[in-house]
Amino acid sequence: MRTERALNFNPGPAALPLPVLEQARDELLNFKGEGLSILEISHRSRAFESLVLETEKLMKEIMRIPPGYRALFLQGGASLQFSLIPMNFLPAGETADYIVTGSFAEKACKDAGQVGQVHLAANTKGQGHRRIPRQEELHFSPSPAYVHLTTNNTVYGTQWHYTPTTPGSPLVADMSSDILSRPLDVSAYAFIYAGAQKNMGPAGVTAVIISEEMLDRVPQSLPSMLRYDLHAKNNSLYNTPPSFGVYIMNLVLKWAAENGGLSRLEEVNRKKAALIYKVLDEYPDFYRGHAEKDSRSLMNVTFRLPSEELEGLFIQEAGKWNMTGLKGHRSVGGIRASIYNAMPEKGCRTLADFMEDFYARKG
Amino acid sequence: MRTERALNFNPGPAALPLPVLEQARDELLNFKGEGLSILEISHRSRAFESLVLETEKLMKEIMRIPPGYRALFLQGGASLQFSLIPMNFLPAGETADYIVTGSFAEKACKDAGQVGQVHLAANTKGQGHRRIPRQEELHFSPSPAYVHLTTNNTVYGTQWHYTPTTPGSPLVADMSSDILSRPLDVSAYAFIYAGAQKNMGPAGVTAVIISEEMLDRVPQSLPSMLRYDLHAKNNSLYNTPPSFGVYIMNLVLKWAAENGGLSRLEEVNRKKAALIYKVLDEYPDFYRGHAEKDSRSLMNVTFRLPSEELEGLFIQEAGKWNMTGLKGHRSVGGIRASIYNAMPEKGCRTLADFMEDFYARKG
Repeated sequence: MRTERALNFNPGPAALPLPVLEQARDELLNFKGEGLSILEISHRSRAFESLVLETEKLMKEIMRIPPGYRALFLQGGASLQFSLIPMNFLPAGETADYIVTGSFAEKACKDAGQVGQVHLAANTKGQGHRRIPRQEELHFSPSPAYVHLTTNNTVYGTQWHYTPTTPGSPLVADMSSDILSRPLDVSAYAFIYAGAQKNMGPAGVTAVIISEEMLDRVPQSLPSMLRYDLHAKNNSLYNTPPSFGVYIMNLVLKWAAENGGLSRLEEVNRKKAALIYKVLDEYPDFYRGHAEKDSRSLMNVTFRLPSEELEGLFIQEAGKWNMTGLKGHRSVGGIRASIYNAMPEKGCRTLADFMEDFYARKG
Repeated sequence: MRTERALNFNPGPAALPLPVLEQARDELLNFKGEGLSILEISHRSRAFESLVLETEKLMKEIMRIPPGYRALFLQGGASLQFSLIPMNFLPAGETADYIVTGSFAEKACKDAGQVGQVHLAANTKGQGHRRIPRQEELHFSPSPAYVHLTTNNTVYGTQWHYTPTTPGSPLVADMSSDILSRPLDVSAYAFIYAGAQKNMGPAGVTAVIISEEMLDRVPQSLPSMLRYDLHAKNNSLYNTPPSFGVYIMNLVLKWAAENGGLSRLEEVNRKKAALIYKVLDEYPDFYRGHAEKDSRSLMNVTFRLPSEELEGLFIQEAGKWNMTGLKGHRSVGGIRASIYNAMPEKGCRTLADFMEDFYARKG
């Protein structure tokens, strides 16, 4: 039973900025003087419509989204987009190319394969998903309907540090675990999606950034809720949206802007990750990093210890240092430290100090 | 700018029980001594898995769901189920029957028509959706894959007060706006679904009650997120669930149990609705009820006044009595009072008193 808040290294749902949680708590019974909780307010009210429009505007500003794109707030997580994307953008007779660099990329590819024809442009599974393929390792089909990649692989702790060139096809990216963590040239992408629960808000709301060209491709024959164009036309209010999630995302976007925007957040994220990777590099036989150096994620640091027993002890002792959520995913095992935007530098320093201490005693 | 909480007559998202909101506020920064907000907790943690399992158990208890059913907590609202239902249960070459009694029933039917063959067993549109068809007015196709109905029509203020007999086909019901409002013979239905945001919780979580027979029908060829059987097999944790919504639903179910369960809630709901319908019946030329008497909803009371000017004035003056959310849907116009479980009897009494007062001055 903790009375203080823990240092939260969970991979998602993950840490949220404390000022966001405090504001949500303080106004939970009365949203903006409406006399209603944000949980009770009509999605057709002026107060809520303004909130959605403001959230799209904030998203466009902080990500420097160029004209010709919409930002939408939908339901179903990244996982639902895995099937909606091919339903919307993969016509019969065409092929979509998938670059498989981890578990979620693989799921996206598998679901698309239930809808239409897919081609594996690359798959790093044989190498334990320890690295991101180089441009010359990508083998595209002749004219893919789109090319899909996953910019950060939460489970394996790898991240794309370049934007691949496609054979003139639209680039579609799942950015669930690194959106808002660094500046991005959005114009290189036709479609970006991200479950909110890592860097943007609570589980249950999914951001979609979509170009007008892609909106024009949506087949009119799809059932309405599956059509991105209908969601865009209705400003994410085609049906009742996950209103509380949009509200928290709105607060997180404001927090990110107040904290210097994406350049500043990237700077902090680099410092945070460096604190932990430095310990890995000092004791490579003890802290065995999963990702290859040039593919390392700034969001999820994954490593093994010499034995499962030591790993168990590591997690247990970390708990006494007030750290939680460090258990690695079963596909990799060991330890995973997820250090999204809301994890303060202090938290990474505590983890690095603990790792030094643990090595001194057990290494 | 209200400093006090308003009487919330919104059709959904709608009023939530005050003790639920207060508990959510009080523990927003630290869920069950975990040192994390419910918004930050891993859906793979023991604390959250227990919460989901407990919520399913509470749902089964309060609704007296017989063995052989699962209760799931999904995303996308009732609107997403409009397409998932035919994708899961309407094979090529078969026909699904729809009973159209309002806007949402019509949307459900339209989306199903994009997926497969549908047959209209009845449509009350020609009669302004003022009434629920009688059993003998339902004209089924020879052997429907399923029969779909909407038990309460939020927009028109009508409600089914009997369960129709089908030609031996599974009955599928959208109960978004009257679930938990009265006892129900769940065994008469094969599939029940409901967006939470009226009687159960916030927007963004959808309850699905599904029989094992229906689970067995799900085609293995569907993309994973669209398959009800995968959600059931994974206890609603196939992907990251809308965790905050499930949490609030858990609190609402406990509140409903503490308040006497569904029989007691129905009793109170009947009393609440009677207070308002009594005024309609007293001044039928002034307060012109939309629904026919035997089809009246206990959840949404819809009526017009002699002029749009009076309707505008009614809503404006109701605001001064601390009431909000009374504007009718554009399809019907006028006034709609949504009086779900969380609307206290006092609120309905205030509305009835106001209606008497307004009539005395303007009637």
